[in-house]
Amino acid sequence: MKTSEIAEFVGGELRGDSDVEITSVASIAHAKSGQIAFFDKLSDMPPIDASCVIVPSRFAASEAATRSVGCVCFILAAQPKLAFAKIAAILHPQKSRGPEIHPSALISPSALIGSDVFIGAFACVGDNSRVGDGTHLLTGTKVGDNVSIGTNCVLHSNVFVEDGCTLGNGVVLHAGVVIGADGFGYVKDTPTTPSAEAAATPPQAGGELIKFPQIGTVVIEDKVEIGANTCVDRGSLGVTRIGEGTKIDNLVQVGHNVNIGKRCVIAAQTGISGSVVIEDDCVIGGQVGFGDHARVQSGAVIGSQAGVLPGKIVRPGVWWGTPIQPLDEFKRQNARIKGLGRLRDELKELKKKMDG
Amino acid sequence: MKTSEIAEFVGGELRGDSDVEITSVASIAHAKSGQIAFFDKLSDMPPIDASCVIVPSRFAASEAATRSVGCVCFILAAQPKLAFAKIAAILHPQKSRGPEIHPSALISPSALIGSDVFIGAFACVGDNSRVGDGTHLLTGTKVGDNVSIGTNCVLHSNVFVEDGCTLGNGVVLHAGVVIGADGFGYVKDTPTTPSAEAAATPPQAGGELIKFPQIGTVVIEDKVEIGANTCVDRGSLGVTRIGEGTKIDNLVQVGHNVNIGKRCVIAAQTGISGSVVIEDDCVIGGQVGFGDHARVQSGAVIGSQAGVLPGKIVRPGVWWGTPIQPLDEFKRQNARIKGLGRLRDELKELKKKMDG
Amino acid sequence: MKTSEIAEFVGGELRGDSDVEITSVASIAHAKSGQIAFFDKLSDMPPIDASCVIVPSRFAASEAATRSVGCVCFILAAQPKLAFAKIAAILHPQKSRGPEIHPSALISPSALIGSDVFIGAFACVGDNSRVGDGTHLLTGTKVGDNVSIGTNCVLHSNVFVEDGCTLGNGVVLHAGVVIGADGFGYVKDTPTTPSAEAAATPPQAGGELIKFPQIGTVVIEDKVEIGANTCVDRGSLGVTRIGEGTKIDNLVQVGHNVNIGKRCVIAAQTGISGSVVIEDDCVIGGQVGFGDHARVQSGAVIGSQAGVLPGKIVRPGVWWGTPIQPLDEFKRQNARIKGLGRLRDELKELKKKMDG
Repeated sequence: MKTSEIAEFVGGELRGDSDVEITSVASIAHAKSGQIAFFDKLSDMPPIDASCVIVPSRFAASEAATRSVGCVCFILAAQPKLAFAKIAAILHPQKSRGPEIHPSALISPSALIGSDVFIGAFACVGDNSRVGDGTHLLTGTKVGDNVSIGTNCVLHSNVFVEDGCTLGNGVVLHAGVVIGADGFGYVKDTPTTPSAEAAATPPQAGGELIKFPQIGTVVIEDKVEIGANTCVDRGSLGVTRIGEGTKIDNLVQVGHNVNIGKRCVIAAQTGISGSVVIEDDCVIGGQVGFGDHARVQSGAVIGSQAGVLPGKIVRPGVWWGTPIQPLDEFKRQNARIKGLGRLRDELKELKKKMDG
Repeated sequence: MKTSEIAEFVGGELRGDSDVEITSVASIAHAKSGQIAFFDKLSDMPPIDASCVIVPSRFAASEAATRSVGCVCFILAAQPKLAFAKIAAILHPQKSRGPEIHPSALISPSALIGSDVFIGAFACVGDNSRVGDGTHLLTGTKVGDNVSIGTNCVLHSNVFVEDGCTLGNGVVLHAGVVIGADGFGYVKDTPTTPSAEAAATPPQAGGELIKFPQIGTVVIEDKVEIGANTCVDRGSLGVTRIGEGTKIDNLVQVGHNVNIGKRCVIAAQTGISGSVVIEDDCVIGGQVGFGDHARVQSGAVIGSQAGVLPGKIVRPGVWWGTPIQPLDEFKRQNARIKGLGRLRDELKELKKKMDG
Repeated sequence: MKTSEIAEFVGGELRGDSDVEITSVASIAHAKSGQIAFFDKLSDMPPIDASCVIVPSRFAASEAATRSVGCVCFILAAQPKLAFAKIAAILHPQKSRGPEIHPSALISPSALIGSDVFIGAFACVGDNSRVGDGTHLLTGTKVGDNVSIGTNCVLHSNVFVEDGCTLGNGVVLHAGVVIGADGFGYVKDTPTTPSAEAAATPPQAGGELIKFPQIGTVVIEDKVEIGANTCVDRGSLGVTRIGEGTKIDNLVQVGHNVNIGKRCVIAAQTGISGSVVIEDDCVIGGQVGFGDHARVQSGAVIGSQAGVLPGKIVRPGVWWGTPIQPLDEFKRQNARIKGLGRLRDELKELKKKMDG
């Protein structure tokens, strides 16, 4: 791809040779001839060996010219990182795998398999399940019965999608993801107390734990990406839903009946208890914990390791700590705690003064 | 199943038509004709389309009659949710799979396979292992050598049970569960210091980490259910044990030599270090961390994200925070921290008064 | 192995019969005839049925003679636990599996397989990948294309190593480990804001999340051991590296571009965000969270559940809490918080005194 084509594709302004051939992307520190890189900050621009660099628009043409040492050309863009990501997707397309169903794969005769589908070795597709056009099921993927998988999805090795779940188009599930395992709900069979579910409820000595029905399903909408070994449980009676374009990292737990909106970002090892609602465009850090029935309103940001109490409503803004507080409040509180030693000293002094 | 049969089965009192045929369960909000639902609270009973609803006994017959609009009949029960769970288990039995050993499954000639067993595609059973009557090993399950699996167990896809482990009857392991991987213990090979195991011990610069033997086993008793991608490590020299009827959620870590009692409930992403003891009937929230050799006494409840220090003994009661404290104490302390700003102001005022 | 041979092997001093045959190791409480055990503390030595016990050198010969009841002999060693671990490795060698490639395994014709390799059922090795001498790929292991695996590695069941990753010699990956899945990085496609990656950045309503390229790789050096269901993401543009001899527990998340040094110990469920550096000989507890670009200096120790802010530099020493502080400071602060009630009382009293 020529630099002129790249500039046009990302809507940037080219400064320099429009005819240079670019074959791959790299970081600014490691890019070599034939590669394109980007950077965001003007101050610390290192020596550059890349053939082309995407820079902020404010990086004036003259500067570009001056600083350009080994570098053949610049592309000025409003959002260099975004432009870089977009061009990377073109230069490094998803690994192509010819349409193929490996002879060892086990496909139910009643399954509907679209065109241009890749199904790897030791994969399974159950009864009445549908696999959309252009979808890849890599080696060892297991798809249960009555599952619907859209077009152009990639299910990596050892992914397991349980019976009756639905995946939209362009969904990516990384290795070891489990979709649709039973949710975690039990009722204690004791004579004295009416109900006890999961960890939220006080305990009753003795009494067998009777499984609450976990017969709902999971719906994963278009363009969702889910990280390795993450688990999304099926609804107990209803649906666990993950909205369009939401991205979930590795080792996340999504409980039964959880409803996650569109375009959310949820970092690794976060745990989302049953019936939590996370509205659109939320950003959730790593290792956050949500008590059941909490609701996070659209656009809220929750810092890593925060804890959200059951039933809590989290308004838009930036939140931190356990139990969560607005970030400003959290910082003030931390400062007060740090100042406790001095507070104690002042009190002591005051006492002395009075007594003396 | 007729409403009269259901009422009898759950030990409830029927109000209304005893002859209505019920085929499935649903939530009170979504139940339609032919379905049974339940609710616990009288106040917020929504409009009902279900054919039958299980309600608290205190929900008097007259009320039932009055409020019953589209609903054909009520069953009065002491514990509606429990009754509902019990009837759901009848109406929605575990998926039936005919006795079958898939031709692609790899069963050691020395393995003992019971009757009515289902073994799916690409599953393995190792040398001298036993699989009890009625047990299902779903696609891709791997069972090592010398493993004993009881009757009526279900091991979902990609479960792995390592050599020498023992599962009782009615055990359910969800997809991706790993039973019997090596525990995490090393001894630092340095001239100066005697021992260092895992994270509990101060570090010694340099020195190779020599693996402490992890040659024990895992015993999982009857009716235990373990969630997706959870790991239960084998004992180092002894046994890691999970007691009868205990339920463990997804992505939980159970370290070597841990001993968990009967009927415990352990929520997602909790981590249990080596040699921890959790006695019977404990309820553990999500993302709780246990330092090694801690002991939780029978009936204790530990809130989500709590941290239990190594060696700590946790008495019965409700516990919270890191390090854990009784819930009341935790709340008081939180209130005091919240009040720090005011405390500081009062002190300042006092000072001014004195100085003035 | 005779007691005299064991004493010589571990560099210990034998007291008692040099001719006793030892066949296996056990804990001091459970060891029987023919077994060897160890203990570290003199005070609480239980009755012993072992044939041989490794004890601290300070455990004088006379005492050994006196206390030796059922026990045939003692070995005095500077570090009994280390000696025990070393002899256990001899007496309980890794399970031997004859060189074999199971007929159901799928090996690319372009893959290079060394000698004495074991490849189990339903395993896959992709194009141009190399498997070193003496390495074991157990049932269901998936190795992608262009992967390099050294000698004498063990990849347990359902391990997945993605395209282009490199494993050194003597690497052990437990069941369900995922090496080389895509890292978690997205750029928000909004007109107004330049970039947003993962959870560290404030949110922008609307705007699709465009994937930042995740086209780097993973390098795992010699003698690394990684616990079950742990995930190590590939670098975005560069490399995710785990240094020689480092040991990682179960369910750990290692993000893209992370660089972990040699001989580190990282306990279960810890989460390491992108571009974090952990230098040599660090000890990290369980459930610790690292914000991106944090750096942990050589020899630091971080307690369980601690939280390290993005970009933080952690110096050598023992650290605790969220955000992390030196352990001493953390303890002092905790004591001050505990004393808040008294502080408030003192202030109240002082006020009364002044007013009265």
